[in-house]
Amino acid sequence: MASYCYGIDVGGTTIKCGLFKTDGTLVEKWEIPTRTENKGEAILPDIAKSILDKNEEKRIFKDEISGIGVGVPGPVNAHGDVEFAVNLFWGYKDLSQELEEMTGIPAKAGNDANVAALGEAWKGAAEGAQSVIMVTLGTGVGGGIIINGEILTGKHGAGGEIGHACVEHDETERCNCGNKGCLEQYAAATGIVRLANRALEASEADSVLRKETVTAKAVLDAYKEGDALACQVMETFGDKLGRALASFACVVDPETIVIGGGVSKAGQPLIDCIQKYYEKYAFPVCRKTPIILATLGNDAGIYGAARMVLAK
Amino acid sequence: MASYCYGIDVGGTTIKCGLFKTDGTLVEKWEIPTRTENKGEAILPDIAKSILDKNEEKRIFKDEISGIGVGVPGPVNAHGDVEFAVNLFWGYKDLSQELEEMTGIPAKAGNDANVAALGEAWKGAAEGAQSVIMVTLGTGVGGGIIINGEILTGKHGAGGEIGHACVEHDETERCNCGNKGCLEQYAAATGIVRLANRALEASEADSVLRKETVTAKAVLDAYKEGDALACQVMETFGDKLGRALASFACVVDPETIVIGGGVSKAGQPLIDCIQKYYEKYAFPVCRKTPIILATLGNDAGIYGAARMVLAK
Repeated sequence: MASYCYGIDVGGTTIKCGLFKTDGTLVEKWEIPTRTENKGEAILPDIAKSILDKNEEKRIFKDEISGIGVGVPGPVNAHGDVEFAVNLFWGYKDLSQELEEMTGIPAKAGNDANVAALGEAWKGAAEGAQSVIMVTLGTGVGGGIIINGEILTGKHGAGGEIGHACVEHDETERCNCGNKGCLEQYAAATGIVRLANRALEASEADSVLRKETVTAKAVLDAYKEGDALACQVMETFGDKLGRALASFACVVDPETIVIGGGVSKAGQPLIDCIQKYYEKYAFPVCRKTPIILATLGNDAGIYGAARMVLAK
Repeated sequence: MASYCYGIDVGGTTIKCGLFKTDGTLVEKWEIPTRTENKGEAILPDIAKSILDKNEEKRIFKDEISGIGVGVPGPVNAHGDVEFAVNLFWGYKDLSQELEEMTGIPAKAGNDANVAALGEAWKGAAEGAQSVIMVTLGTGVGGGIIINGEILTGKHGAGGEIGHACVEHDETERCNCGNKGCLEQYAAATGIVRLANRALEASEADSVLRKETVTAKAVLDAYKEGDALACQVMETFGDKLGRALASFACVVDPETIVIGGGVSKAGQPLIDCIQKYYEKYAFPVCRKTPIILATLGNDAGIYGAARMVLAK
């Protein structure tokens, strides 16, 4: 009977590792550097060594471990193969099999945004919810959809890629994905800066944003202080994101919507701004679906990765 | 070992019934009238009697039947309870339990649009697909989402209610649901008529549509004949529906998208019109997701209902 599992969250500079009990108790967490040189060939051996060392240190035998879950910054298909991961310099990789061969422990891979959503649904803001839409507002907009307590991976590993839903047919600038009008262009940290710069150019109105470098944090701080131009920017943000979430709720009808990522550090005023527009556009029976802040922060990935290797 | 199952599709005027083998072979189908008087109190007893009579006729014992699946025109929650069904004059109804008590056979209810999607995923256009988005373009726009071969019901039974995703923030007219800019206002048969009437009022251009009553069929026929005004209407239709489907594909990343309902009788030209805009707006890896016509027609409901009561 397995008592432990590992949750690993591979980022571009750091690999976060967690040793968990199978009931979700975090026993210990630690980090190792992500060595991306030589096409990231050291990354999986480094993870394997770190886990095997931890087993020795904690006097844990392999048959006490249900598995190793790994979140990866790139598309992972339904079989757990990594299609590519630009930030790790990886091409196609059968991660589960490779890591299993190195450790002798069953392994499973998932996309990092999807895995973070599973973490929040397991032990975070949406603890116990069987269906969740999670949006991660960072440099880009990531997302993860949980249905029946499991990640919705999708045919091409693009399940939950909600940052690239088109929300504005009149957009003239291109998103990194090549399309125009993606949610990410309005709701990511970079999107907020873009909207603010547009607003600053379009008017002569006074604003604290004219006195400093425009960052997402500066816009959000100015918004909380009632700066008129920042408020205008955040109303546009709320309208686009709230409307998109209302559309997604027509598809999924989740129990809970969770907002995470760096932008979510703005807290409840951000949620209020999103919720106002969500309720405006939502299908009536979904109008009261809770929209809440993520609670696990940077640990969501290790929690969700660990959850992946536990039986339902 | 069960060899048979029943699939029942309850409509506002007719109840469609199907006796299936568990491998999906349709043994026989028939219809009975929907008696909606006295708050539809005769509907379930009529279904029960029809099934018990069929058992006698076919010499089938109850333990040879895996269950009775029932599609209902209204929201059905995850427990299989019907919240209400306006066209049947039903309020809340524990359909599964009531029908089980009347027949001695396990029963399960689902929303009719969701059930039709399951039918198409089981034995129709998307046969064998594990994940499907189905859109039913009729008087309204219905939808059903299949994930891992099962209906995505949602917290409030609103999973797949994609007709009420907001696709146009500048709309001034209200949808039946009370919101503005719902997909249904552009892509349903009524939506196509609305767009055509708008276009006719907005210009003096010649069109065959000025010479007859404007129906969705008339617009689609004129479109196929190259009538400029009808083409303009259908480009708007394709833009709204294709963009909405591209957004939904960012959430679900399905294997296949199926288009059904009365409007889909327009055939491949309709698909081409939708696909053109879908590809324009789709996230790159989802761009080639097949968009295909439903094949089961009015039988999709009995197939999907039957599938609901079979083990995965």
